[in-house]
Formats: sequence, structure tokens, C-alpha cells
Amino acid sequence: MNNSATAGTDPTLTDKFQRGNVLANSCPSRGILQDVTSRWGVLVLFALLQGTHRFSELRKTITGVSEKMLSQTLHALEADGFVLRTAHPVIPPHVEYSLTSSGREVAARVEELVNWIEVNINPILSARDEYAAHKSA
Amino acid sequence: MNNSATAGTDPTLTDKFQRGNVLANSCPSRGILQDVTSRWGVLVLFALLQGTHRFSELRKTITGVSEKMLSQTLHALEADGFVLRTAHPVIPPHVEYSLTSSGREVAARVEELVNWIEVNINPILSARDEYAAHKSA
Repeated sequence: MNNSATAGTDPTLTDKFQRGNVLANSCPSRGILQDVTSRWGVLVLFALLQGTHRFSELRKTITGVSEKMLSQTLHALEADGFVLRTAHPVIPPHVEYSLTSSGREVAARVEELVNWIEVNINPILSARDEYAAHKSA
Repeated sequence: MNNSATAGTDPTLTDKFQRGNVLANSCPSRGILQDVTSRWGVLVLFALLQGTHRFSELRKTITGVSEKMLSQTLHALEADGFVLRTAHPVIPPHVEYSLTSSGREVAARVEELVNWIEVNINPILSARDEYAAHKSA
């Protein structure tokens, strides 16, 4: 295989990362997948698909998230280029979070997954009940 | 709203769960989403889309997973009805894991997300480098 054909990709990346492989421990795509599918990351991406939110609005929308976890989650998604943080220079400070174009693309895939689970929650819970009953029988 | 129209859904479920809402802390769909998007759950579903695997094969395919975490992850996905565990009554024991029909459906959504990340890993990593350079500047 000729690995020299790297034109068009970021020159700082090695050939082996022209396409990621999440099954490989050493591939950085696995870390990105973890940011996107983290407990709160998946919910933040899903919530931001509805539009720009302030921090306090996100906390209200995603019930149960702590201030610390939401802050960490937003920071990771911002560092990956999925979330844009906009600080308006007003008093009191006004900070807004929105999806970037790549954030919208990845969030659209998250939404498909979330929608499937929400729509199929009845049969999933039935299967879970059956499994539990079978195990305890 | 007339909430009595529950015909066709599992009678053990209350009306409010006819469709899940992962943004609500109390909705069981959030727990299912966590099983599916857990650190190893997402990789197990993705790997099992390629076909039936033994436990040892899964450990080899998903590099970095410990025996304990793989076992816990498979158990959660089995309890949710996504993974089928088949123990063949032979000596030595032969246990295989495969996706159920609902497992294949949810794994197909996981695959879309994984594929997007793997294909776009170059621009994502470039964005991450730019962000890090900007922050340290």
C-alpha cells in the first residue's frame, strides 16, 4: 500500500489516521467518541440541536446535571470544535453556547440514536422486565 | 389530553412513557441511552454489528477493554434486550454473543455516529489543535 498520498489531509497527522478506528485503543477517534457519547455530552449535543442556550438554560433543560459536570462537558465539546462559546461583553456577563457546523453534523447522528431509543422505550422496557423476571425465576 | 388510549403498549407502563424523554432525569430512556453510549457499550454494539463473537474475540477486537468491564457491559446490553448470550452445552464451555433484532437497530444508529467520527477525524483533530494553540497563546 502506498501511504504517501496524504495530499489534502492535515500534514501534522500521520497516514494511519486518514480514517479513524474506534476499536483501536490508540486511535484518537476513540477519545472523540467518548466526548460525544459521555453521560452529559450526548445530552448537551441533543439539547443544542434545538438552538443556542445560555449555561443556566442548559442546566434547566438537562435535568440532573451539576454545574461542574455541565461546565466540563461543554469545555470538552468546545475543545473538539463541536460547540461554540460566545461571551457577550455586557454586565452582567452573558455567555451563550451553540453548535458549530461540525457540531450540528455529529449532533444529528446523536439525535437519530436518541430518537430511536425514545420511540422504542416501551418494547425496550418490556424486554428488560422479561429478562429480570426470567433471571429471578 | 386523553391519556386513556394506551391500547397496544405494555400495560405495566404508565402513559407518560409512551415516548421517552432523555432530557428528563426520571425517564428510563436516559438509562437505556447510558447503556448504549457507555464507554464500552458503544464499542460492543459496533463490534457485534460485524457478527457473532465469543467473549475472547470481543476482548481482542475492542483493544483496551478489561475482562470485568466487558462482562459488565455485555450484561447490561443483554438485560436491555440488545445482546443475545448463547451458551453451547459443550466441554469446554462455548459462549457466544450476538445482536438481537432491536440490538441491530440501535447498533445501526451507533454505527452512523462512529462512521461520521472515523471519517471526519482529520478535521476534528485539526480543530482541537487550533483550539489548544489558541488557548495557550
